[in-house]
Amino acid sequence: MGGDLGPELPIRGALGALEKKRNLEIILLGPREGLQRQVEDIFGSESPLLQRLLIEHAPETIGMDESPVEAVRRKKNATIMVGFDLVRQGRADGVISAGNSGATMAAAIRKLGRLKGVARPGIAGFFPTLKKRVMIMDIGANVDCRPRHLAQFAVMASSCSRILNGIDDPTIGLLSIGEEAGKGNTLVKETHELLQSAPLNFYGNVEGRDVYKGDVDVIICDGFVGNVALKVSEGLADAAARMLRAEISKTWRAKIGYLLIRQAFARFKQRVDYAEYGGAPLLGINGTGIICHGTSDALALENAVFVAADMIEHKVNDAITEALAAYNA
Amino acid sequence: MGGDLGPELPIRGALGALEKKRNLEIILLGPREGLQRQVEDIFGSESPLLQRLLIEHAPETIGMDESPVEAVRRKKNATIMVGFDLVRQGRADGVISAGNSGATMAAAIRKLGRLKGVARPGIAGFFPTLKKRVMIMDIGANVDCRPRHLAQFAVMASSCSRILNGIDDPTIGLLSIGEEAGKGNTLVKETHELLQSAPLNFYGNVEGRDVYKGDVDVIICDGFVGNVALKVSEGLADAAARMLRAEISKTWRAKIGYLLIRQAFARFKQRVDYAEYGGAPLLGINGTGIICHGTSDALALENAVFVAADMIEHKVNDAITEALAAYNA
Repeated sequence: MGGDLGPELPIRGALGALEKKRNLEIILLGPREGLQRQVEDIFGSESPLLQRLLIEHAPETIGMDESPVEAVRRKKNATIMVGFDLVRQGRADGVISAGNSGATMAAAIRKLGRLKGVARPGIAGFFPTLKKRVMIMDIGANVDCRPRHLAQFAVMASSCSRILNGIDDPTIGLLSIGEEAGKGNTLVKETHELLQSAPLNFYGNVEGRDVYKGDVDVIICDGFVGNVALKVSEGLADAAARMLRAEISKTWRAKIGYLLIRQAFARFKQRVDYAEYGGAPLLGINGTGIICHGTSDALALENAVFVAADMIEHKVNDAITEALAAYNA
Repeated sequence: MGGDLGPELPIRGALGALEKKRNLEIILLGPREGLQRQVEDIFGSESPLLQRLLIEHAPETIGMDESPVEAVRRKKNATIMVGFDLVRQGRADGVISAGNSGATMAAAIRKLGRLKGVARPGIAGFFPTLKKRVMIMDIGANVDCRPRHLAQFAVMASSCSRILNGIDDPTIGLLSIGEEAGKGNTLVKETHELLQSAPLNFYGNVEGRDVYKGDVDVIICDGFVGNVALKVSEGLADAAARMLRAEISKTWRAKIGYLLIRQAFARFKQRVDYAEYGGAPLLGINGTGIICHGTSDALALENAVFVAADMIEHKVNDAITEALAAYNA
């Protein structure tokens, strides 16, 4: 049910994922009857894919504006609560949600708890950059952090990036306002020291300007800063597109130019579209959860399924637990 | 001498400013002989504008990587030190620098001190948005802030925005990760309470996504977050332009389209170009200082002169002192 756009897109995302990946079953969470009807409309009532599609009745939804902690306490039958319950019971391996991300994190912690040694689970997002996709953690779960939390984010994100991006020893950058070790706020300066002595491929500080260069594989920051960086980027991309459209619509010459150029625009848009990256993994919970953008389209949700499957098949959580045990020791 | 690109651009900026504004004198700071030669090359040795152009010998420069506090302690004859000394002596009204911004702030505080009632001076930058230019403070001077510092930034930026943007009672937004009062880190939540009871037109929280919408006149944040937001925006704009160019260069069709569309691109670029905004005022110092981007072109430096002149002619500092006295009481 999650997402700003209702259940149709998750159903289409499930269809795409089931078509492309054979060793996969998907459980849709929501009010059974309504979902059943929409699934038949979209899959067709004779589709063989229906054999790998289940529906689990979850009649409640959590709104985007609800307080996460209260919502998960009151709404036992919300889709995400039912979903993480399935994981706890061993009936599902992971949960994907395009709903209230705070509530998704709260539900995951409540139902599954944290991995051993984790002080604070967090959310790892992806940025498109000039060179590759870069993982950034935390993008909103932890707004007040201590240096040891950020150091743990680095250990967790390093393990996850190694597996998801297939990199041997991911480079870790610390988001700051200057490249030198002495630059930044107190949190960042103290974290810098911790990371220098950690068993990680620590690159040093990276500036906001460098986020999109793709010089490092992972960028570490607190959830407040990460969330601002992500949302500012979205806002700028949106505003720039609007302003550019307005300028193009002013002359016939530019309008004709746009017709010739629009395929290049489309390829560019695809290259930077977060939908290609399929959501943001929760790292540090004792299970697998992916948070998708509220306006995710079917492709984004489909890709989120593949990210979750990748994390489960390649045992990202085992890698995190092991790396954290080594680091904490 | 400041800026990444040497003295030529400041000289051209001075030329433009002197041409457009008659009641203006400009003092160039740097090694006298070298400047003299370049001024004659650029102005022509017979230019009547030379009557309003002075050169003050300042043989030292502070590099971009030098520690601000140390640099201003050691280099008494650096351009910015000489500049703020002229202000202290009443021989100049303001200083514009495209050099090391930390050092510029440190020199201003050292030579001029703070305005009465100011706990922490800060830097107020401008963002282009869909509706108007928006002032954002602080963009890098104060990386560890308390709520009362942010509240003072709001009072100072409100006074400055009222005068520079000609707005009666500027709306003040607080940068956070959710619109509700309860969203954000501890600093932001406590600042929110202070701003609600302050004699300001407080709009409430704004999210990173909203920065470029232009719904408020002023956005308040600590200098770490503001710097990250600004630099991430620059990095994204740069990376997006590169990726788009790469896509356009792939086909002849798109290349021809680009020829037709490029004037629209140029207008768009002008609309979002920080050069149009002419630098970032230092607010809270007992004098006038403007920090320009290290890669500022002549137009940006020329516009910075007009911003400084505006602040001086309309007595922004008197307005700040008055508003702070009322607020602190």
